[in-house]
Amino acid sequence: MTIYKLNLNNYIFIKMSLKSDLYTIVFGTDTKAGKQFDIVLLWLILTSVLVVMLESVPEWGLRYAYNFLILEYTLTFLFSVEYILRLLISPKPLKYVFSFWGIIDLLSILPTYLSLIFAGYHYLLVIRIFRLLRVFRILKLARFSKEAIILLQALKASAYKISVFLVSVLAITVFVGAIMYVIEGGEKSFTSIPQSIYWAIVTITTVGYGDMVPQTTLGKILSSFVMILGYAIIAVPTGVITVELSNLNKAKKECPNCVNTSESSANYCSNCGYAWKDTEI
Amino acid sequence: MTIYKLNLNNYIFIKMSLKSDLYTIVFGTDTKAGKQFDIVLLWLILTSVLVVMLESVPEWGLRYAYNFLILEYTLTFLFSVEYILRLLISPKPLKYVFSFWGIIDLLSILPTYLSLIFAGYHYLLVIRIFRLLRVFRILKLARFSKEAIILLQALKASAYKISVFLVSVLAITVFVGAIMYVIEGGEKSFTSIPQSIYWAIVTITTVGYGDMVPQTTLGKILSSFVMILGYAIIAVPTGVITVELSNLNKAKKECPNCVNTSESSANYCSNCGYAWKDTEI
Amino acid sequence: MTIYKLNLNNYIFIKMSLKSDLYTIVFGTDTKAGKQFDIVLLWLILTSVLVVMLESVPEWGLRYAYNFLILEYTLTFLFSVEYILRLLISPKPLKYVFSFWGIIDLLSILPTYLSLIFAGYHYLLVIRIFRLLRVFRILKLARFSKEAIILLQALKASAYKISVFLVSVLAITVFVGAIMYVIEGGEKSFTSIPQSIYWAIVTITTVGYGDMVPQTTLGKILSSFVMILGYAIIAVPTGVITVELSNLNKAKKECPNCVNTSESSANYCSNCGYAWKDTEI
Amino acid sequence: MTIYKLNLNNYIFIKMSLKSDLYTIVFGTDTKAGKQFDIVLLWLILTSVLVVMLESVPEWGLRYAYNFLILEYTLTFLFSVEYILRLLISPKPLKYVFSFWGIIDLLSILPTYLSLIFAGYHYLLVIRIFRLLRVFRILKLARFSKEAIILLQALKASAYKISVFLVSVLAITVFVGAIMYVIEGGEKSFTSIPQSIYWAIVTITTVGYGDMVPQTTLGKILSSFVMILGYAIIAVPTGVITVELSNLNKAKKECPNCVNTSESSANYCSNCGYAWKDTEI
Repeated sequence: MTIYKLNLNNYIFIKMSLKSDLYTIVFGTDTKAGKQFDIVLLWLILTSVLVVMLESVPEWGLRYAYNFLILEYTLTFLFSVEYILRLLISPKPLKYVFSFWGIIDLLSILPTYLSLIFAGYHYLLVIRIFRLLRVFRILKLARFSKEAIILLQALKASAYKISVFLVSVLAITVFVGAIMYVIEGGEKSFTSIPQSIYWAIVTITTVGYGDMVPQTTLGKILSSFVMILGYAIIAVPTGVITVELSNLNKAKKECPNCVNTSESSANYCSNCGYAWKDTEI
Repeated sequence: MTIYKLNLNNYIFIKMSLKSDLYTIVFGTDTKAGKQFDIVLLWLILTSVLVVMLESVPEWGLRYAYNFLILEYTLTFLFSVEYILRLLISPKPLKYVFSFWGIIDLLSILPTYLSLIFAGYHYLLVIRIFRLLRVFRILKLARFSKEAIILLQALKASAYKISVFLVSVLAITVFVGAIMYVIEGGEKSFTSIPQSIYWAIVTITTVGYGDMVPQTTLGKILSSFVMILGYAIIAVPTGVITVELSNLNKAKKECPNCVNTSESSANYCSNCGYAWKDTEI
Repeated sequence: MTIYKLNLNNYIFIKMSLKSDLYTIVFGTDTKAGKQFDIVLLWLILTSVLVVMLESVPEWGLRYAYNFLILEYTLTFLFSVEYILRLLISPKPLKYVFSFWGIIDLLSILPTYLSLIFAGYHYLLVIRIFRLLRVFRILKLARFSKEAIILLQALKASAYKISVFLVSVLAITVFVGAIMYVIEGGEKSFTSIPQSIYWAIVTITTVGYGDMVPQTTLGKILSSFVMILGYAIIAVPTGVITVELSNLNKAKKECPNCVNTSESSANYCSNCGYAWKDTEI
Repeated sequence: MTIYKLNLNNYIFIKMSLKSDLYTIVFGTDTKAGKQFDIVLLWLILTSVLVVMLESVPEWGLRYAYNFLILEYTLTFLFSVEYILRLLISPKPLKYVFSFWGIIDLLSILPTYLSLIFAGYHYLLVIRIFRLLRVFRILKLARFSKEAIILLQALKASAYKISVFLVSVLAITVFVGAIMYVIEGGEKSFTSIPQSIYWAIVTITTVGYGDMVPQTTLGKILSSFVMILGYAIIAVPTGVITVELSNLNKAKKECPNCVNTSESSANYCSNCGYAWKDTEI
């Protein structure tokens, strides 16, 4: 491939090459530079989350208010640079802006700018914590990502069953909460049905804060049933996910003839009937 | 099939056809109209549950008392229409009346009518929450229902083992509760054996409200044993259900040519290469 | 077999036959009479446990003191009859007396007799709760017992692994408790290392009473680690028992040639090489 | 092999033989003497841990202060002897000193010596608890160790997946904690984001101390979501470890004659009937 040594073309080529390189660094994770960019970004995100956290501690927020402000503006500047960079080098900038990560990136810098204009928007800073989710991008390394994908596949594959389970649990808590309101009604804690449902959730999930506890004998008996139920049915989501993980985990053998994968013990492809020779594996 | 154009016959036929159509809509979930009927009903049920819930919140119950009353009467009227409809189109009305759903349907409208006659029956409204169970009917759609049935089959298949487990847990709590009553007896919390059994259930299920806690050293040692026991034996129901789900999950198809069984999605026997025809299953 | 019609022999024969019949009824569960005997005994045991429980409730214990006493003496009399019966019909009475059930049976009647002689032995009545364990004898019915035995086999097979796990958990709680004592030492709750170990057990088993909670920042950080550890490692006993149950559950095929059992998919016995014919299963 | 009867050589030989024997006793667990040495050591460690524990109980620490001191010095002397012994007989003493167990051994005697020189180092005694970890050395017996190794292998094999899971859980708690701080901010408990994250960890792990509970309606709704999330996702580590244990449990043996793999206990290949010789494994 020959390149015409026209000045303009050359400039465009370099620019394109630069854009392509930057794209690999900013959006990719496979090259060394891309990995380093991600690690720097990861540390910046963790630092910004730490700043938000420590700023909220009363004694520190006041004492180091000035330092936190400087850090905050520096981090916002760096994240703004990142955002503009991503916008410029993205092949489809608009698609990036309205993508999940584009919105998160914007939300992570917006609050600071808004707090310069308005007062009281300070707490929107917590949105930056969304950026923590980007931590997982660094996990997208060879082996790690494989494990993460298997976990997500297992959760996805069992999503229906777990939804059915959770809807059942919620229906039970509404039912139990309403009965408990009738039983304990008038007591100091169980002042309304939503309040009693909150208690039922605290109990069935075995959290058991103890801020609301049944006082009557009948309430304690019902409470005991709910506890034992919660203790026993936790087996359901566990069983579902275990089976899904087990299925995904099973060693498979790819058929050279079609897209199908068979169990490693198969002699014939279960899709097209291709016969493996004994020596092949 | 010819239809005699006699007026009466025609009328009966139309009536029967209407009844059959209505039956498909009201009791079925497969047709579009039946699905829509179920969705409307689902929303009505959720609204009525929400009304009962919000009415119980002290500040709202008083402020919007009139609005809640109007909503309540409207919903009761709609549920009454549904009940009468089901009664009319059911081929065996009596069977419906005494069926599980028939009783639930009646219980969901009865309290409001009773509250018109008597005062103080208001709390029977909570019975309407039974209707929430009808939420599952909408889950009876193609894919969803399959998952729900597998979950129920797993629970049913392991019902014996889980009963044995729960009876054992209850026996342990009675035993531990009685010992704890002797150890902590006279302390402010452990005033009787049933009270101590309640504590044992709270502890072994790892709920841990904290309303009753052992005060003596011996009580704390026994308590620690109960906690560790509860922490370890939760593995039993989990293991039982996982194994059952795993068994149910392995839907197998027997090869008519050899002793081998293949996964139900296979087109060819993985042992001898026998080809299933697509129409066979 | 001819029976000599001598009076004495006949008497002995009848006596022996009666003893044998009684043995089948009292110790067996397979005959109808044996089953009925067990059910009557089960209800007597449950009643006696209930009496002990209700007697401990302050308001009832005083009000119905006389009724409880009558019931108590009646039950003790019946259990005494049962004990003497078992002693008489047992082929090896001494073996029964020193067996597990023999001791339990004696302990369940002894306290009442002792309370007649001495005062203050009343609480020994709780020993009767041991009799609750006999509840499982009725579970020894055809199907039920099979399930119970599989559960026990799974627990037995994984006993080593679960012991290793529990010893590790205890070592962690001792370690964490000691560190927590140093961190929170001097605070109102963490007054000694054993006390701190109790807190560590409450936390790692996710019971979380809340009677002892860390007050310092360092204590809360350590506490968070312990919680997450407890939340994650509960997977270990669960995994162990699931795998054991799964192994026990696997459908096996018995070899007609040797004592070995093979997986149902095997073509040859894995022990002696016996070849199954394709048509056999 | 002949041994020259020179005095010096003989002495060296005896010394080497003694060293080798001692090595087998002190570092090994296979011989009877080695096992006995480990058991004595185990009891010494348990005693020393018990001394540290009981010394911390206020009433006992004062009353038996002298006895505890004597015991402490005796145990430190014995552990010092053990340390010097290990140092002398180890083939590479420096490697031992800087190994994990070497450091633990040193740390277990150092605090007492330091407390002789300085005051206030007393609490460093808790480091002795590290020695409890040596308890596992005694578990390194034939059968036991096999189980322990399988457990550790399962944990190691699923380390990546469980790390991904725990990082996700921590990210969720940071996110939820920050939102909760905004919702409940100003309330008595949720005074800062780190404090709220602590609450989120207490809730998602279903520990539920109850020292911090949401007061607002919005806070209770968010809290309910966190509880249900924590209740449902505990299935993930459980599933991961179960699958790993299940994989490790299937010790397989490949048939040299066909592609089939059999259970390691098989004498004949279950596919082709190939006979393994007994000596082969």
